[in-house]
Amino acid sequence: MTTQTATLVPSYVQGAWWTPESSDGAAPVLDANTGELLAHVSTAGLDLAGVVDYGRTVGQAALGRLTLHQRALKLRDLAQYLNAHREELYELSYKTGATKIDSMIDIDGGIGVLFTFSSKGRRELPNSDVIVDGAAEPLSKDGSFIGEHIYTRIPGIAAQINAFNFPVWGMLEKFAPAFVAGVPTIVKPATPTGFLTEAVVRLIVDSGLLPEGSLQLISGSARTLLDVMDYRDLLSFTGSASTANQLKTHPNVIEGGVRFTVETDSLNAAILGPDAVPGTPEFEAFIKAVVTEMTVKAGQKCTAIRRTIVPQALVDDVVAAIGERIAQRVVVGDPRAEGVTMGALASLEQLRDVRGAVDAMLAAGGELAYGTLDAPQVRTAAGEQAVVADGAFMSPVVLTWADVEAETVHSREAFGPVTSVLGYKDLPDAIRLAAKGSGSLVATICTNDGDTARALTVGIAGHHGRVHVLNRETARTSTGHGSPVPHLVHGGPGRAGGGEELGGIRAVKHHMQRTAVQGSPNLLTAITGVWHTGAARNIAGAPEFGGQPGAVHPFRKALAELRIGDAFASPLRRVTQQDIEDFAAKTGDTFYAHTDAAAAEANPFFPGTVAHGYLLVSWGAGLFVEPAPGPVLANYGLENLRFITPVPAGDSIRITLTAKKITPRVTDVYGEVCWDAVIQNQDGDIVATYDVLTLVEKEDTTYANWPAKA
Amino acid sequence: MTTQTATLVPSYVQGAWWTPESSDGAAPVLDANTGELLAHVSTAGLDLAGVVDYGRTVGQAALGRLTLHQRALKLRDLAQYLNAHREELYELSYKTGATKIDSMIDIDGGIGVLFTFSSKGRRELPNSDVIVDGAAEPLSKDGSFIGEHIYTRIPGIAAQINAFNFPVWGMLEKFAPAFVAGVPTIVKPATPTGFLTEAVVRLIVDSGLLPEGSLQLISGSARTLLDVMDYRDLLSFTGSASTANQLKTHPNVIEGGVRFTVETDSLNAAILGPDAVPGTPEFEAFIKAVVTEMTVKAGQKCTAIRRTIVPQALVDDVVAAIGERIAQRVVVGDPRAEGVTMGALASLEQLRDVRGAVDAMLAAGGELAYGTLDAPQVRTAAGEQAVVADGAFMSPVVLTWADVEAETVHSREAFGPVTSVLGYKDLPDAIRLAAKGSGSLVATICTNDGDTARALTVGIAGHHGRVHVLNRETARTSTGHGSPVPHLVHGGPGRAGGGEELGGIRAVKHHMQRTAVQGSPNLLTAITGVWHTGAARNIAGAPEFGGQPGAVHPFRKALAELRIGDAFASPLRRVTQQDIEDFAAKTGDTFYAHTDAAAAEANPFFPGTVAHGYLLVSWGAGLFVEPAPGPVLANYGLENLRFITPVPAGDSIRITLTAKKITPRVTDVYGEVCWDAVIQNQDGDIVATYDVLTLVEKEDTTYANWPAKA
Repeated sequence: MTTQTATLVPSYVQGAWWTPESSDGAAPVLDANTGELLAHVSTAGLDLAGVVDYGRTVGQAALGRLTLHQRALKLRDLAQYLNAHREELYELSYKTGATKIDSMIDIDGGIGVLFTFSSKGRRELPNSDVIVDGAAEPLSKDGSFIGEHIYTRIPGIAAQINAFNFPVWGMLEKFAPAFVAGVPTIVKPATPTGFLTEAVVRLIVDSGLLPEGSLQLISGSARTLLDVMDYRDLLSFTGSASTANQLKTHPNVIEGGVRFTVETDSLNAAILGPDAVPGTPEFEAFIKAVVTEMTVKAGQKCTAIRRTIVPQALVDDVVAAIGERIAQRVVVGDPRAEGVTMGALASLEQLRDVRGAVDAMLAAGGELAYGTLDAPQVRTAAGEQAVVADGAFMSPVVLTWADVEAETVHSREAFGPVTSVLGYKDLPDAIRLAAKGSGSLVATICTNDGDTARALTVGIAGHHGRVHVLNRETARTSTGHGSPVPHLVHGGPGRAGGGEELGGIRAVKHHMQRTAVQGSPNLLTAITGVWHTGAARNIAGAPEFGGQPGAVHPFRKALAELRIGDAFASPLRRVTQQDIEDFAAKTGDTFYAHTDAAAAEANPFFPGTVAHGYLLVSWGAGLFVEPAPGPVLANYGLENLRFITPVPAGDSIRITLTAKKITPRVTDVYGEVCWDAVIQNQDGDIVATYDVLTLVEKEDTTYANWPAKA
Repeated sequence: MTTQTATLVPSYVQGAWWTPESSDGAAPVLDANTGELLAHVSTAGLDLAGVVDYGRTVGQAALGRLTLHQRALKLRDLAQYLNAHREELYELSYKTGATKIDSMIDIDGGIGVLFTFSSKGRRELPNSDVIVDGAAEPLSKDGSFIGEHIYTRIPGIAAQINAFNFPVWGMLEKFAPAFVAGVPTIVKPATPTGFLTEAVVRLIVDSGLLPEGSLQLISGSARTLLDVMDYRDLLSFTGSASTANQLKTHPNVIEGGVRFTVETDSLNAAILGPDAVPGTPEFEAFIKAVVTEMTVKAGQKCTAIRRTIVPQALVDDVVAAIGERIAQRVVVGDPRAEGVTMGALASLEQLRDVRGAVDAMLAAGGELAYGTLDAPQVRTAAGEQAVVADGAFMSPVVLTWADVEAETVHSREAFGPVTSVLGYKDLPDAIRLAAKGSGSLVATICTNDGDTARALTVGIAGHHGRVHVLNRETARTSTGHGSPVPHLVHGGPGRAGGGEELGGIRAVKHHMQRTAVQGSPNLLTAITGVWHTGAARNIAGAPEFGGQPGAVHPFRKALAELRIGDAFASPLRRVTQQDIEDFAAKTGDTFYAHTDAAAAEANPFFPGTVAHGYLLVSWGAGLFVEPAPGPVLANYGLENLRFITPVPAGDSIRITLTAKKITPRVTDVYGEVCWDAVIQNQDGDIVATYDVLTLVEKEDTTYANWPAKA
């Protein structure tokens, strides 16, 4: 790898490593701390149409042979493999200007995304290729025509264009949900730090864990990628608004219908509540958060706090406290030197950009309240203090504004260790100022008052993708203002690009098409693999309620034999007043509706005393149970229980249980079976409906396949 | 109204009716059947910036004073009001060329959308202004920092540009979800049929039912509307792809972040399964569906079947059967004449367009298999057969194609009573042909075979917004290929515009911003109004488990007094082997895990015999119950029950119940309360968790406010 990156960073396309024949016109890649030449990148002569076509054919086919769970499990294996090779990646990461902590956010954070999507994919999705979305809707009175929604993967590729600041996390956070969805990825990292992405892709390829065509890498420019994409594909872009806007006008986006999701950096705010005065734990936590966001990754995070919005009376206190904390805690320098807490910007070009933005802000009325634009003295790799001419180092900078309405502070971003402190009059004013960012990825609200938290959050939520609420209870445990977590969405409206990434299974669905499906219960059962009320059944049990001679009780079937629609119908059992009173006495549930005829009759919902709902479901279990050991291991839960028709003494009940969903676990010798349960009375009226959740063995082995109990 | 529409169709903006000072340059509106001049439209001099600003300020404020349920209820009242005035609308509707059945689809269909959103809004949403999306996610080990997602309305307006073919439904299907979400609507109907939309808006305004600013109408051109919109707003567009694509490139979309959803017509397919040969009920249903889609609204539906894809061997049979059915059933003419089943196209311009498209298809290899492009003899309003020169009438047309790969048949749309019949070789070929439409709103799959239904549906779903599966079971009850229903999404990828409308509550959420919120359980409880595990409680009951002296059992509180976090903690109760055996004997649930020590021990999940899960929840009810009559009326269900730790004989259990969600019903004297229930053992281990659902009176009146029982 070292030899490769010292010359040309290769691409990985169509199942093989690729480098251009010559390095003519290739872009140089430099060490951010020293300016040393590390490598070049170029895509001259790369067949992008072939890359996309390979993903659409080979990649789609290979991923299509796996279920959602099987793909999710592969992410776990991949995460474990990368975890074992982290040290190699840290070494490369220093060259991007990242400190050890910055690298952990990038590398360990990226691996963490794989673990989260692996576990959520297997816990929250069916082990299938179709995801049912929401409840079935009756569309005809007789139940013969119903509708529901399914998700299936998009039929193309996911092209992922990433920013320079998180070369590992940026790739993995987009790749993981695409992979679980079954959509092949083409990743295009940014030139200054793409060599680190290449190292990760090399590890992934070497691992041999992924199906062919599921991941391709383009090292270098991919300006014409959109020319060969269409509505089957998804383009996920993280980077500058100007590049995003240019891509958005591509004919294949406008007319061709390429799905396009954008995440651009934004003018994120942190709002200090009026209660969070100096001396409170909230004030302290707020200052800490602002300084952290200024210095982690040298402030090169699209989520960093650019606007620090505080009560007017506290502006001076806040500026002083930020300055104090920076002076005490922040050591700028080469991340390889001991004690350095803030590294270089990613390149000299970035440094010029940030200085230019601060100059523009000063010209627009900003005042320098802390820091300097001069090249700072920094700690070198050798541990000395020096000005490093070729290192992209910068001092943290705090600005204040006499005019908090100045357009520049709400629109011009300095993508480095820079924040502006703005004073607000009251909560509506704070909301108004935060909204002047015209759409942001994230805002922090720092308060210990519930009403303030609600007013500020509801006030700004429509302008934000994430709101981070900070108080004394979370000061120590918060994952931080700037860190997207895989469980929660990342992205925001307006200036933030209007896209949405992550958010757990939400991100998997962003790689799928939601389709309404209408038809008969039988055909919707065939399509989704989930049994629908009204569809055909194979009923064992009481002949008077449909039980077929010779049909086996479905609780006697392991997953290998069990089929959707296998059912059991019980006989009727009569409920007496004595049963109800015994149940009340034994359980202690002496609610008047079960025990006091006059009071029960006065209640608007009951005809008189009625059986307990819990009596009904308990008897239901008694009616459907198979007492002897068998493949059904346990009833681990119950869902969607609704009591419909009350059961007075003298009525009888029966239950019908039907295999509705079968979910074999990819890592275990058993799986989950969800049973549709319906209790009816002697007239056929529906008394209660619910889903019974059980664990069932894949093969009925009397536990021969099981590990010893813990 | 008649006077108005005979001259200039007015707009309704900023709370008042508006017409331009002069009709210079105004566009004429003609009767589709006769060519008679009905009115003009013009927006010359209209202050669009003022319209948008009025919505953003007055409309947002007025709607913001209502909860989601209150807004949903207003839709019911509005639907009832419009229902009572349908006849006036039918009279106008004939002038658009619509038959009575066409008008019912448009007018009754539109009113039906209001009813559906009213009922779904109140059944499926909280009675609040914040919707929680999905489960809370633990983000710290100690539970002090958690995350979840909320929806709040977008902070701007919903501009709705509609097509000419459904002037009533088109408006109401977009308006209803925006209104429930709390987002003010600005509707801009198409010129040829906007006079009917104006009549509906006039009824709505006259009803006085809606808050100020929640609905504005622009009659006439609104080309510069996007100039005054930004990322706070949503533009929902239905119409031609070319107009949509032009709007998409507007700087306020590309750079300004206006949310933009598009629904354009597409080359929808109907696929006849190989099993559905002539003589089967499926073949018959298929022919019926194709002819219906050709003739309803004279084929002017973005969902109509443009490509009829059938087994190669059946092409001739299908063409013959379609022709036969048209000849028998279709009577073209003035919809006001008796017996007419297909009216005129909406305008002579539309007629020219459709004829042009068919000409282009003939030039590209299509062959005319049924019908003619000549002006047909039609039934006039007077009941005579004649050629009406100024009427936009057309004969139904069926085309066949020797080359089914011809690009034109998959890309050129004749927006009228026209379909092409194409032969396929096998199922993958049928899928490939359907996908050549490059993204469609809907496809019909006609088969009675489950495997065929699954293969075709999963194969084409990624290219479609809706799949309508037709067989003998649904032939009579299907709502039809061409009819979007409010419960299911409408829209599709690629050529269909890439948007999504309807789909029940999904459409409400399209008018809201999803925001991740992170913080402590206390502050997330304050923000969402939903109690979160770990948040503060006001506990009554057992002092040893937190019960406070003097605290009232929450079951004694009506909604007026009950607060989120009001809780009850029970004392411990010991479970004996005798209890378990008694429960087994009484319920009949003699599963070996409760009754057979040796067998239970062999089970991988149990330490030996354990109490029934249903015993635990039954005892739980006994532990938390308040037996005497009070404001809690009934326990109507239970959700999310999970059994965590088994309870062997000798263990004890206790329960803690906490008010989690409170949902007062806007139409009743009671509401729903969802209680967080946790059963723990003597060691504090969690035995089971679930949600208990109850009905609770708003005021504790001992039923004084109640109507008599049915």
